[in-house]
Amino acid sequence: MEDRIYIGSVFEYSFSFNQSDVIKFAEASGDFNPIHLDDEFAKNSIFKKKIIHGFLGGSVFSKVFGTIFPGSGTIYLKQDLSFYKPMFTNQNYKASFEVINTDILKNRAVIKTKILDDLNELVIKGEALIKHPKICKK
Amino acid sequence: MEDRIYIGSVFEYSFSFNQSDVIKFAEASGDFNPIHLDDEFAKNSIFKKKIIHGFLGGSVFSKVFGTIFPGSGTIYLKQDLSFYKPMFTNQNYKASFEVINTDILKNRAVIKTKILDDLNELVIKGEALIKHPKICKK
Repeated sequence: MEDRIYIGSVFEYSFSFNQSDVIKFAEASGDFNPIHLDDEFAKNSIFKKKIIHGFLGGSVFSKVFGTIFPGSGTIYLKQDLSFYKPMFTNQNYKASFEVINTDILKNRAVIKTKILDDLNELVIKGEALIKHPKICKK
Repeated sequence: MEDRIYIGSVFEYSFSFNQSDVIKFAEASGDFNPIHLDDEFAKNSIFKKKIIHGFLGGSVFSKVFGTIFPGSGTIYLKQDLSFYKPMFTNQNYKASFEVINTDILKNRAVIKTKILDDLNELVIKGEALIKHPKICKK
């Protein structure tokens, strides 16, 4: 990983979730909405099958910020999420990150965040605002 | 719970998380950032002790939308989150919801979402856009 992050820095991260992740997320959050857990219920929904919690999908942004790009020490200030498509277990997704603005005095960056599916279609889109010492002028 | 949701509808929900929830969230999301898991690491951080993952805290909005207000059948379209204060385990929090706009033809509502701590201070603030058949004219 680069030592510095500046306007134009990009990062990509591939990931997937399985049903055991969904169950753990349900237990952690207390969100036992059957659309995430019950095949019969989900079959009769508009999605036709179980979907992943949106906040489990979106958590990839937090995971990457806090552990990889920029990494440990990140302060998460804002994140907006637009949910375009449902996410499913055992599918390959890609999270992409692009720094579009920085405040180098405050070590802050605005980062475009996206999740794309294996058809390269947009699943979640948003922007994050984070603070980290690595955020500086190019 | 009311049968209909319209501009001015409000809802409040009290909750807390424990460290077992945090560990399950870490396992589900793969986010093992030590700020959430390691006392020694956290002691030397600006927070001075372990904090809850921001997406675990924010998941209360999704839980409430999907299971209580409006409840099952909610389609989550957007959520923005501004993180004002860190969240800790074994503390009492309150999530509050206020419908500030609706599109009754599309059954959509814009909902102000907040998490407050036991000092009534703002912890997370944002807006959600959701779709549900209960969303209608007063």
